[in-house]
Amino acid sequence: MTEGIVRFQVRYAETDQMGFVHHPHYLIWFEIGRTELMRQLGYAYADIEREGTLLAVAEVSLRYARAARYDDDILLVTRVAAVQSRTITFSYRVLREHDADLELLATGVTRLIAIDRTGAPKRLPAELLQRFRETTASSS
Amino acid sequence: MTEGIVRFQVRYAETDQMGFVHHPHYLIWFEIGRTELMRQLGYAYADIEREGTLLAVAEVSLRYARAARYDDDILLVTRVAAVQSRTITFSYRVLREHDADLELLATGVTRLIAIDRTGAPKRLPAELLQRFRETTASSS
Amino acid sequence: MTEGIVRFQVRYAETDQMGFVHHPHYLIWFEIGRTELMRQLGYAYADIEREGTLLAVAEVSLRYARAARYDDDILLVTRVAAVQSRTITFSYRVLREHDADLELLATGVTRLIAIDRTGAPKRLPAELLQRFRETTASSS
Amino acid sequence: MTEGIVRFQVRYAETDQMGFVHHPHYLIWFEIGRTELMRQLGYAYADIEREGTLLAVAEVSLRYARAARYDDDILLVTRVAAVQSRTITFSYRVLREHDADLELLATGVTRLIAIDRTGAPKRLPAELLQRFRETTASSS
Repeated sequence: MTEGIVRFQVRYAETDQMGFVHHPHYLIWFEIGRTELMRQLGYAYADIEREGTLLAVAEVSLRYARAARYDDDILLVTRVAAVQSRTITFSYRVLREHDADLELLATGVTRLIAIDRTGAPKRLPAELLQRFRETTASSS
Repeated sequence: MTEGIVRFQVRYAETDQMGFVHHPHYLIWFEIGRTELMRQLGYAYADIEREGTLLAVAEVSLRYARAARYDDDILLVTRVAAVQSRTITFSYRVLREHDADLELLATGVTRLIAIDRTGAPKRLPAELLQRFRETTASSS
Repeated sequence: MTEGIVRFQVRYAETDQMGFVHHPHYLIWFEIGRTELMRQLGYAYADIEREGTLLAVAEVSLRYARAARYDDDILLVTRVAAVQSRTITFSYRVLREHDADLELLATGVTRLIAIDRTGAPKRLPAELLQRFRETTASSS
Repeated sequence: MTEGIVRFQVRYAETDQMGFVHHPHYLIWFEIGRTELMRQLGYAYADIEREGTLLAVAEVSLRYARAARYDDDILLVTRVAAVQSRTITFSYRVLREHDADLELLATGVTRLIAIDRTGAPKRLPAELLQRFRETTASSS
């Protein structure tokens, strides 16, 4: 099963005055996770967009378990949860790595729809759709 | 029923290369909505925090209906959806105002938990809890 | 002399773990100041861009005097400092309003260049250039 | 001479509707550069802050030469330009890597002052000051 695996450190700019990562940043991290997963599948999202298919976020759900802090080592795992001709659903797990330990910080799901440059819904490019389907199928 | 009503214009910085508002920004807007709703109820969130109660986002759900664009006039309506001794749930509607028209752009729900400065869960201050309860009750 | 005057409150998302506004946000505020100044001059920057002239930031200088905090009342004053056929320089003062007091928080200057959609430099539209020149002249 | 070298890819969230990286993000990148440079010198900025010395940005200057785009490979080089008992000045070069090519995208300088948690200026911790001085000296 194909996963997008990304490792990075929390940026100072991502903290807020509570001293934790400000919660909207997880959505930005998810975007990095999708980019990486697509790269694993052989696609650069930058190219997909250049060729006229934009993936717009239509729905988000997110649960925060533990707070992340500045300079924490984050491990983000992204999977394709479901795919249809016009929509694709990704799931995410955000973990903190500390020595040999892994702590779950948050989980999320985003549903994206394919649109053209005018904002009108369209089908995913056939080859990409097929590639996403294989990935999803292999997860069961 | 108490509502937090906020009007503002989309900032250039909130757009992305799709030409729309980048989706995480709605969570930042929701935060502004909560601040305003609390002000309506007679509380400055800045003071609540100074007195040792932090409201941390524990859960988010968000649906995007139409895209917002730079300089759009946004109307954000925030309500208390549910309240318990340690958690409070807000609901949000994001609308675009254009002449006499109102278009729904997005809806969302966030569940927040009260914590102290160490991150440990705590009860909401009694008076604030009471005030939130009245608001919620009056909505039915 | 035309000034862009904007008043707003510091957003929670704009703070960092130091408890102050994270310094890059001032550049986002400056952008709001420019938008407002242009509106005062009779132009919507959204329209200027739609008609093919983009104003890209080429140079920034910024001095921070005092820190801004969550929920502070900010007053931002934007002026045209200089204008040439392809570049325009804005200056900014960021102030905190507290009762009758005004405290200077920061000052800045940004130089912008006019480009077309491909990124190539171009002249500012004649009418807009004229309008900017009048504003600058009137400041001396 | 000690340099902080960081490599990363432009995030989608960092773009704006011009299709380029929104200019304030370079300041966020600079912060990552400082963190890395300090790590090279044997210090975690997170620890310095925990021990009571905060480095607040007092002055910024920034020149943009070429625009960065989504998914570009960025190379950021950070150096200590000057150090005094209460202030430290960093310089930055932002480059794009493409195959064997390196293109200069931007250069910047930030001056930071050491403050305590109340915001009052203080001297840099002696050992850290010494370490910064060695790095600066070695650059001449």
